[in-house]
Amino acid sequence: MEDSIDLSQIPGGWADTGRAEAFSDAVLAIIITLLVLDLRPPEFSPGELWIGLLQQWPTYLAYVTSYLYVGVVWTNHKAAFRRIRYIDRGLHWANLGILFTTALLPFPTAVIAKAMQHGNRADERTAVALYALIGALLCASWLIFFRYLSRHPDLLEKGVGKRFFQLEQNRAWTGIALYSIGGLLGYGITPAAALAVFLILPLFYAITSEGLYKLPALIHQH
Amino acid sequence: MEDSIDLSQIPGGWADTGRAEAFSDAVLAIIITLLVLDLRPPEFSPGELWIGLLQQWPTYLAYVTSYLYVGVVWTNHKAAFRRIRYIDRGLHWANLGILFTTALLPFPTAVIAKAMQHGNRADERTAVALYALIGALLCASWLIFFRYLSRHPDLLEKGVGKRFFQLEQNRAWTGIALYSIGGLLGYGITPAAALAVFLILPLFYAITSEGLYKLPALIHQH
Amino acid sequence: MEDSIDLSQIPGGWADTGRAEAFSDAVLAIIITLLVLDLRPPEFSPGELWIGLLQQWPTYLAYVTSYLYVGVVWTNHKAAFRRIRYIDRGLHWANLGILFTTALLPFPTAVIAKAMQHGNRADERTAVALYALIGALLCASWLIFFRYLSRHPDLLEKGVGKRFFQLEQNRAWTGIALYSIGGLLGYGITPAAALAVFLILPLFYAITSEGLYKLPALIHQH
Amino acid sequence: MEDSIDLSQIPGGWADTGRAEAFSDAVLAIIITLLVLDLRPPEFSPGELWIGLLQQWPTYLAYVTSYLYVGVVWTNHKAAFRRIRYIDRGLHWANLGILFTTALLPFPTAVIAKAMQHGNRADERTAVALYALIGALLCASWLIFFRYLSRHPDLLEKGVGKRFFQLEQNRAWTGIALYSIGGLLGYGITPAAALAVFLILPLFYAITSEGLYKLPALIHQH
Repeated sequence: MEDSIDLSQIPGGWADTGRAEAFSDAVLAIIITLLVLDLRPPEFSPGELWIGLLQQWPTYLAYVTSYLYVGVVWTNHKAAFRRIRYIDRGLHWANLGILFTTALLPFPTAVIAKAMQHGNRADERTAVALYALIGALLCASWLIFFRYLSRHPDLLEKGVGKRFFQLEQNRAWTGIALYSIGGLLGYGITPAAALAVFLILPLFYAITSEGLYKLPALIHQH
Repeated sequence: MEDSIDLSQIPGGWADTGRAEAFSDAVLAIIITLLVLDLRPPEFSPGELWIGLLQQWPTYLAYVTSYLYVGVVWTNHKAAFRRIRYIDRGLHWANLGILFTTALLPFPTAVIAKAMQHGNRADERTAVALYALIGALLCASWLIFFRYLSRHPDLLEKGVGKRFFQLEQNRAWTGIALYSIGGLLGYGITPAAALAVFLILPLFYAITSEGLYKLPALIHQH
Repeated sequence: MEDSIDLSQIPGGWADTGRAEAFSDAVLAIIITLLVLDLRPPEFSPGELWIGLLQQWPTYLAYVTSYLYVGVVWTNHKAAFRRIRYIDRGLHWANLGILFTTALLPFPTAVIAKAMQHGNRADERTAVALYALIGALLCASWLIFFRYLSRHPDLLEKGVGKRFFQLEQNRAWTGIALYSIGGLLGYGITPAAALAVFLILPLFYAITSEGLYKLPALIHQH
Repeated sequence: MEDSIDLSQIPGGWADTGRAEAFSDAVLAIIITLLVLDLRPPEFSPGELWIGLLQQWPTYLAYVTSYLYVGVVWTNHKAAFRRIRYIDRGLHWANLGILFTTALLPFPTAVIAKAMQHGNRADERTAVALYALIGALLCASWLIFFRYLSRHPDLLEKGVGKRFFQLEQNRAWTGIALYSIGGLLGYGITPAAALAVFLILPLFYAITSEGLYKLPALIHQH
C-alpha cells in the first residue's frame, strides 16, 4: 500500500494510519487473548475437580471483566482512528501510550484475583488501589491522545469537527475522576464498592464509544 | 484504507469490516498457536524420555482436537464475513462474543487432559460437562451473531439471501443440542461417549462451513 | 477489501488469499516469537550468573535453529502464495496443515535441548528421532499443499507454470527423505550426525526458497 | 492484494513489502506485549501485598525500558519501510535479522532484573555486559539492513536519496559504539553507569527516528 503513496505529497514524517492500526490491532488482540492463559486447570484431589473449578471463580470474573475492558478499548480505538487521516511521530507515541496502559491491565486484574483468594482485607485494599491507579492511567493516556489530536487538526479526516475531540476529552476526564473515586472508596471504605465502580466503568465506555454526542441520536434510534 | 472512506456516505457508527477481520484473524491465530504452549518436554529419569513422551498422549490428542476446532471457527468466520459489507457496534460485540467463547476453548481442553491423567471417573465427568458447556456457549455465540445479521440485512453484501443466515442459525442450534446431549451422555453414562461427540462435531462444522445449503452442491461436485 | 469483490464472479466457496495470508503471517509471527519465551534467566548462586548463562547454550542453539527454520517456512510460504490467486476450502485446510506442523516445531526443539542437558545417550536418540519425525511431517504437509495446487491449476495466478509445483514437490520429497535419513543416523549411530542434518536442511530450503528451477538464474546473477 | 500484481512486471523473486510489513508488525506487537507476562502478582504473606508489589520495582523498570525500546524499533522500522518499494530475499533475511535481535531483548532485560534482585555486584556486571552485547547486535542488524539497501537502490521508492541510508548507517555505528562503551563502563567501573547509557540510547533513537538529517528541520519547526 505504501508504494502507492507519493512521498512528496505528505508532510515529512507523516504517514497514513494503516500500519499503526495493524500494529494496534495485533497488540490488543494479544492482550485480550493472553488473559486466557490465567485460566488453568486447578490442582485437585481425585474426585474433587469440580470443587477446584468452582474455587477459581475470582479468576473467571477477572477474565470476563478484563475481556470486556479490552473489547471497549478496541472499539474506542477503532472509532477514533476512523477520524484520523495521517499519523505523525507525536501521535504514534500517544498511541503507544494507550497500548502501554492497556497492556498493563491484566496485571492489576491478576493482583485483585490473588488478593481475594489468598490475602486479607488490607491486601484487597492494596489491590483495588493498584487497579484504580492503572485504570486512571489508562484514561489519562486517552486524554493525552485526544488533546494531541485537538491541537493537530490537520491530521484528521475532512469533516471531523472539533466537538468530537472535546467530548472525548470529557469522557477521559470522567474516567480519571471515577477511577480515583472508586480507588478511594475501595481503599478507605470497602473493596466491594471499588469493584462495582470498576465493572460499571467499562459499560459506560462501551455505550458511549462513538462519543457522548451520539447519545441523543442513540436515544432517538431506539 | 479508512482514509478512502467518505464518512458522510456511511451511516453513523458503521464501518467496513477490514479492521474487525484483521483483529479476529489475530485473535484466532493467537488462540490456535497458544495451544502449542501446553506441549512441553516431560520430566523424565535418564533413559526414560520416550516413556515420558508417550504418557503425554492426552495432551497431544487435546492439541489436535482444539487445533481442528479453532481451524473450523476460522473458516466459518471467513465464510460469514465474506457476506458482510458493514459492521456496526452491535455486530462488533457479537463478533467479540464469538472470539470470547473460542478463546475459552483451550481451558476445558486442558481440564479434560488433566482429568484423564490425574483424576478419577467423577473428575472425567466434571471435565466433559465443562467442555460441553463451553462448546454449547460457543454455538450460542454464533447463534446470536447470525440472528443479529438476519435482523440487520442492510449490513450484508448485495445478493446475500436471507436463507443463508436461516440455515446458519439451524447449524448453531444443532451444535447447542448436540453439545448438550454429549455433555449429558458423558456425565450420566460414560465420558467416552461425550469425547466421541466432541470429536465428531468439529468435523460436522468443517464439512458444512459454507452453509448447509451448499451440501447438495457439494454432493453433486464429487 | 472483501466488499470490493463481486461474489457472483468468484466460484462458490472461493475467496482471494488476503485473509489466509494475514492469518498465516500472524500464526508464523507468533511461533517465531514464542520461541524466545524459552530464554529465561538461569537460577544461580550469587556471583555465578555467568556460569548459569553459559550452561544454557543448548537453549540458545535451539532458539537460533528454530528461528531460522520458521523464517524459512515464512519465506517459502510467501513465495508460494505469490503464485496463488484464489483459495478454496481444500487449500485452506492444506495451509492449516502447514501451520500445524510448523507450530509443533518448538516442541521437539525443546525436547532436544532438555535431553542434551538432563538426559543420557538413549534420551538424545529419542529426542532426535522425534525431531526427525516432526521435520518429515512438516515436509509432508508442504507436499500435500503443492499436490493440491498442481491438481487445481485454476486457483493459480495466470502465467504460473506446472513446472513450479512439480519442482516444489521434489523439494518436499527431498526433505522427507533427508529427515528420515537424519533420524535413522541419529537413532542408530550418533545424535550428532542427526543434528548436523537438521542444521543443514533449513539452509537448503532457504537457498532454494524461490524454487529449485531458480538455481541456474541465481548462479548467473552472482 | 497480491492478485493485482502483474508478476511479469516485477523482477524474479521480488515482491511488494505488504506481507513483510504485516509480519514485522505482528512480531513486534508480540514482543512488546509478551513483556507484560513478566508482571505477575508477587507471593506475599497476608497483609503484605503492598510490600511485595514495591519489591518488584526492577521488573517494572525493565518493563518500561523494554517497551520504550521496542516502540523505538517499531517507529524506526516504519520510517525505513516507507522508503522501500520492493523486497527481495536478501532484504527479507536482513529484516528477519532485525526481528531476531529485537525478540532477544526481553531476555537480557529479565537477566538484569534478576541480577539486581538476587545477585551480587559480579552478577550485575555480567548482566549489563550481556545487555550491551545484545544491544550492540541489535544496532549491527540495522547496519546490515541499511548497507544492503544502500547497495540495492533499485529496491527503494523513487526520490529516496542515498543520503538517508548513509546517515542511518551512522546512527547504527553510533549505537554499536555506545553500547560497547556502556558495556565496558558497566563491567569495569559500575553497573549504574551502563544502565544510564542503556536508558539514554533509546531516547536518542526515538528523537532521530526520521533520520539524523531531519534534526535541523525539527529544530526549525519548534
